[in-house]
Amino acid sequence: MRMTELIQKKRDGHELTKSEISWMIDNYTNDQIPDYQMSAWAMAVYFRGMTKTEIADLTMSMVASGVQIDLSEISGIKVDKHSTGGVGDKVTLILAPLVASFGVPVAKMSGRGLGHTGGTIDKLESIHGFQVEQSQTDFVKQVKEIGISVIGQSDDLVKADKLLYALRDVTATVDLIPLIASSIMSKKIAAGADSILLDVTVGSGAFMKNIDDARLLARTMVDLGNAVGRKTIAVITDMSQPLGTAIGNRLEIAESLAVLQGGGTADFRHFIAEIAQIMLSLAGLEKSIDEILANLSNGAALAKFKALITHQQGDFDELVNTPIHETKFSKIVKSQKSGYITAFDALAAGKLAMSAGAGRAVKSDSLDLDAGIHIFKKIGDKVAIGDPLFQIFYNKETFDVVTESQILLDNISISDEKISINDILEIIK
Amino acid sequence: MRMTELIQKKRDGHELTKSEISWMIDNYTNDQIPDYQMSAWAMAVYFRGMTKTEIADLTMSMVASGVQIDLSEISGIKVDKHSTGGVGDKVTLILAPLVASFGVPVAKMSGRGLGHTGGTIDKLESIHGFQVEQSQTDFVKQVKEIGISVIGQSDDLVKADKLLYALRDVTATVDLIPLIASSIMSKKIAAGADSILLDVTVGSGAFMKNIDDARLLARTMVDLGNAVGRKTIAVITDMSQPLGTAIGNRLEIAESLAVLQGGGTADFRHFIAEIAQIMLSLAGLEKSIDEILANLSNGAALAKFKALITHQQGDFDELVNTPIHETKFSKIVKSQKSGYITAFDALAAGKLAMSAGAGRAVKSDSLDLDAGIHIFKKIGDKVAIGDPLFQIFYNKETFDVVTESQILLDNISISDEKISINDILEIIK
Repeated sequence: MRMTELIQKKRDGHELTKSEISWMIDNYTNDQIPDYQMSAWAMAVYFRGMTKTEIADLTMSMVASGVQIDLSEISGIKVDKHSTGGVGDKVTLILAPLVASFGVPVAKMSGRGLGHTGGTIDKLESIHGFQVEQSQTDFVKQVKEIGISVIGQSDDLVKADKLLYALRDVTATVDLIPLIASSIMSKKIAAGADSILLDVTVGSGAFMKNIDDARLLARTMVDLGNAVGRKTIAVITDMSQPLGTAIGNRLEIAESLAVLQGGGTADFRHFIAEIAQIMLSLAGLEKSIDEILANLSNGAALAKFKALITHQQGDFDELVNTPIHETKFSKIVKSQKSGYITAFDALAAGKLAMSAGAGRAVKSDSLDLDAGIHIFKKIGDKVAIGDPLFQIFYNKETFDVVTESQILLDNISISDEKISINDILEIIK
Repeated sequence: MRMTELIQKKRDGHELTKSEISWMIDNYTNDQIPDYQMSAWAMAVYFRGMTKTEIADLTMSMVASGVQIDLSEISGIKVDKHSTGGVGDKVTLILAPLVASFGVPVAKMSGRGLGHTGGTIDKLESIHGFQVEQSQTDFVKQVKEIGISVIGQSDDLVKADKLLYALRDVTATVDLIPLIASSIMSKKIAAGADSILLDVTVGSGAFMKNIDDARLLARTMVDLGNAVGRKTIAVITDMSQPLGTAIGNRLEIAESLAVLQGGGTADFRHFIAEIAQIMLSLAGLEKSIDEILANLSNGAALAKFKALITHQQGDFDELVNTPIHETKFSKIVKSQKSGYITAFDALAAGKLAMSAGAGRAVKSDSLDLDAGIHIFKKIGDKVAIGDPLFQIFYNKETFDVVTESQILLDNISISDEKISINDILEIIK
């Protein structure tokens, strides 16, 4: 087999066979196929696409390129959840203990944030002492003992994806649905779950900017998961405005804690309950929204959260006593108009939080875990002139709070007409 | 400027600016842009094409990436000629001395053969003692003295093309008209000629398999040459059957010598004269076909050929006394049918000659300069059963002459109806 011929076959619009794809990924992972051939293939895929069979074959070849986590020692159906990223997206932090509180085992690997989107692992590290690294043995052991573990993704998982993702990033081949789908799904499959819930975000703060692209990505991943024997459901969720009321690592931990203590906004609690209902159904458990909301109020989910933090050496008492760490500076930005909020741009909010220190522009940037934004008003809320819209928390003396906050303010619309948006836009099975 | 953005711009169908293209080629030549980005760009060009302006900018950036030959010391209009390659294509060997015999200076750099197509430099090396390497100073000095020099292409010419060509070869981006055009034209422009005659071959033995592709390549190169101030004309010539009656390095030298001695077939002499007429007109000289044919018969062109060989240390007497070097083995293949030849496949003939030792499958192969094929009958010729069709000359004991010659025989068609084809199909100005 010669890679030049495989590139040409794809360039000319033909389908690669399973053995061709597997040969290509094996040899790329083992440094036998150079980057310049893979990037030419990826660009050909940009123009020619891939068939469902090719995507499934690519994904399973990628899974085989690294370590695969064996969760078979844990009894029950293991459900994993993945979000394509968003602003203020702390869903996993609440969802994982909530689902675990119904006896469904949660063995979850999460990632770090980049750009305007946050990552669960960074957020958990804002809890004093919390350890995000665990051996595979300890990971499985903890899930068996307390029903939940959330750790950073192992470097040995899906080696081909690491290589290919880095290459795509510098060859204008990032925004290809077949390659995005296989990248995400290969990691979920290698992480060992039986069923997968995908949260495909859409809107300014998300990777997918419009519903058509989001639907195509969701459909591709759901078909792919089911084709390779993992029951998969996708929810398409709105990311035109930030999720919940907090953006920033510790601020989001605090908001999550509040929801698990029976607090938070009614909308956000309901959103979490709906997602949890789907995730539980993937584990074979049918629960009503009321039953699920009850576990957020009665301390059951909170107990799982406490067990998770404590078992991973986090200081739960410190978190409960001081959920928010004060920053050196803060600024409240008020409304200059009255009416109803009709837009609160997620991308602008995410970028502001990043500039304030809550996110990384490039992978090597360090984080200010306490920096971020609190949101007072969201789409559909009524505001009067002078009402607080949002508050920025930061420690950097060089942060130009006036200029930066004005950009977000310019991306908040207020009008006479009240509109409302659904958090869950579609469910793709 | 970032290469990723330039790739994306091309991927999305936009035109790159002159400074973007020049930045890209400069940095690629200087190892600042990696192969994996250039190959992604080339694949995007495959799908998006390039505008005339982009192709001209790319070509001139490539010219600037290496040494440029200065022919200004030579008075008169310097015309260069390039063929896109063929089987039995010894045109340069006859054309160069013929044109020089009219006082038009010929300062020509030629290439080596690869695959089923031959190269002028290999053919010249079959002349005992002939030196194909010359310093730039000696090259110019010889043209000033005797009006003609034919040498191997300098390694320092168009560095970017060498890199890009090697990359395209392994990334399924060879057959792209804009990149073929800029590769050919950059070398011609760097070689210093004022005017350029392009011989774009078409047919089974050529790189371009159909007239539409040939016409597009010819039109692209002619527009490109004229856009950058080099008067350029292309002839599209037939390569469905081999050119002339000899294939193989020494055999083609012998055929060329015969034509220069007033021999050869009438068709081939006429073809050469037509090409020479266009080349002379590019140098500002209008000559009739009869005037040109006269210089083939009266010894004028032969005298230039002798001067060329002698000045480059070749043994002209040995050539004249023993034009063909006998090989250890030879086989005459005869017709099994009677009628008219309607097809004599150039590709099959080129591959047979290569297998017999006359060509290289890969660059590192060594050549048997005496091996090759003599053709007795061509398209339009009448044959009877038992008439010789072709003869193979070879020295390799391992050559399976029966099997290999049968493949060519299977690609020769004989029918009751006489057809004729023109050697020059179109002229593109």
